[in-house]
Amino acid sequence: MTVTARTIVLAARPQGTPDPGDFRIESAALPDPGPGEVVLQTLWLSLDPYMRGRMSDGPSYAAPTPLGHPLPSEAVARVLVSRDAGFAPGDIVAVHDHWRDHMIRKGTDLRRLDPTLAPVQTALGVMGMPGMTAYTGLRHIGKPKPGETVVVGAASGAVGALVGQIARLGGARTVGLAGGADKCAYVTETLGFDACIDRTAPDMAAQLAAACPKGIDVYFELTGGAIFDAVLPLLNPFARVPVCGTIATYNATSLPDGPDRTPALLRSILTRSLTFRGFIVTEFWGDAPEFYPRMAAWLQAGDIRYREDITQGLDQMVATFIGMLQGRNFGKTLIKLAD
Amino acid sequence: MTVTARTIVLAARPQGTPDPGDFRIESAALPDPGPGEVVLQTLWLSLDPYMRGRMSDGPSYAAPTPLGHPLPSEAVARVLVSRDAGFAPGDIVAVHDHWRDHMIRKGTDLRRLDPTLAPVQTALGVMGMPGMTAYTGLRHIGKPKPGETVVVGAASGAVGALVGQIARLGGARTVGLAGGADKCAYVTETLGFDACIDRTAPDMAAQLAAACPKGIDVYFELTGGAIFDAVLPLLNPFARVPVCGTIATYNATSLPDGPDRTPALLRSILTRSLTFRGFIVTEFWGDAPEFYPRMAAWLQAGDIRYREDITQGLDQMVATFIGMLQGRNFGKTLIKLAD
Repeated sequence: MTVTARTIVLAARPQGTPDPGDFRIESAALPDPGPGEVVLQTLWLSLDPYMRGRMSDGPSYAAPTPLGHPLPSEAVARVLVSRDAGFAPGDIVAVHDHWRDHMIRKGTDLRRLDPTLAPVQTALGVMGMPGMTAYTGLRHIGKPKPGETVVVGAASGAVGALVGQIARLGGARTVGLAGGADKCAYVTETLGFDACIDRTAPDMAAQLAAACPKGIDVYFELTGGAIFDAVLPLLNPFARVPVCGTIATYNATSLPDGPDRTPALLRSILTRSLTFRGFIVTEFWGDAPEFYPRMAAWLQAGDIRYREDITQGLDQMVATFIGMLQGRNFGKTLIKLAD
Repeated sequence: MTVTARTIVLAARPQGTPDPGDFRIESAALPDPGPGEVVLQTLWLSLDPYMRGRMSDGPSYAAPTPLGHPLPSEAVARVLVSRDAGFAPGDIVAVHDHWRDHMIRKGTDLRRLDPTLAPVQTALGVMGMPGMTAYTGLRHIGKPKPGETVVVGAASGAVGALVGQIARLGGARTVGLAGGADKCAYVTETLGFDACIDRTAPDMAAQLAAACPKGIDVYFELTGGAIFDAVLPLLNPFARVPVCGTIATYNATSLPDGPDRTPALLRSILTRSLTFRGFIVTEFWGDAPEFYPRMAAWLQAGDIRYREDITQGLDQMVATFIGMLQGRNFGKTLIKLAD
């Protein structure tokens, strides 16, 4: 059986907002699998904001994707051929892979999924990296106490939606920001946030202040930009800010105009005893054994809800990614490649 | 006995660098002490950078000093008259007081000092608030591990000198910055830092990078400004930044010109998993029972050294304060009022 793999590679480094011309699809026949290897068909790929960082060659926590190489993605895949005794054709697995529809991987790279526990694509969302990000960022850095106020931007997105729901389950007051009335209605009515502010409203900062009458104790930073500016004056003494992403600035090609407000930020940190702590979820993989059963129980009890924004086909992946950076997704962004 | 108290009050809010005209000395006869009160003669007053913040009415962790009111200072004083059974004339005490030479205070406000343990004015320095600041900021936030690199600006000043020495005692590599060759020689030769960079050198940033070949794991922030700018690119993943002061910007009346580098700072925090944590020493007063004996032992063993910059007389206090903000002090800034 000859399997052809179609792979999206990075053709050029995006300047600002990525352009479809920055990407290219390549096709190649896969070789036969060696001992311990399996041939996989991708069922689902994930799109996440961090991927924008890998496309630039500035300093970051991970090396940039070299030009001509495939981009990273978490994937859910089906085993087609196995030369690893631990896997059989038809098994469904999660694997850290690339933007492609078939692959050969070692069995040791795979995590078996149980399709009876939850839909398998949740391994890319609530039961995967975004879920772990929200859970561990709150657990180790945000540490909300009952009655405290937790604020998160991108509240209808994969991570933000979970931040608010997990914080609410711990007894916190939760305030989200999202783009537009539909998303805000979802955030309060379906996800159960106490309030949601439309980030596009001209008086967004005043609305946020009104929604946080006791100030903000935990700000889970996913967005940066105008939301950060609105949050900073509201942070209470000893507030904690897990810094997880700054999607509002990912496409920026230069810094904003002055003045340079860095000294004012340092002074706020000093005078209000604030904690800013950046983190990458990989730091906290050790929490996985407690995370998976806990999230599964929350899902089964209906305590945590999630929404998927599904696009069909590898050919649509680039356009979907560009739209996600502009906030056009509504829920966890997924690419479905096969049933 | 009628005692006249001379008190320095805030006459006007300084705009930028304080001017002598922003202060005024007032004289007033003290009333007789009531039950539980004592009359005190100030022997030593302390000048510390945080006092600049109290002179402005911007938001801070402490209310600003109202115009016409005395400015705060830690003081070492002698009991002249006592109506508190716990104190007798001649006793030496530490008290959080004001810029003045005599006062009436309750006995319950006083902390008795033992002149045989250490010179009494160390209650304003190594054995007082600056010492606690260095000790607790490292203990709770900086957490240097043996072999890690700790950087501090104002390294010949009251807090900075202790940060480096305490970190060195814990096995860290210590790099300071100070203003001029004399101070740098003191920092390395007397205080035992591994290196000290002249902050006025045109190639200060390059010198700092060369002195930190393994990057920076703990940056104890006392200065802000150009030193912060030089440190930020050198911070290692998971570096910790106790934010204790930003003396370089205390006199600033406006923010620096742009671009606004706030997004770049947030991105650095994110991509390198940095911790920025502001603190005021009062948060950690609970450490006092372990701090005092530990510091006393270090002093007696010669493991920790300190230098005092002593000016005589209340009349010189304002000029000394203005000079300290400009880095003209060399060591802990003290005002001596009486033997």
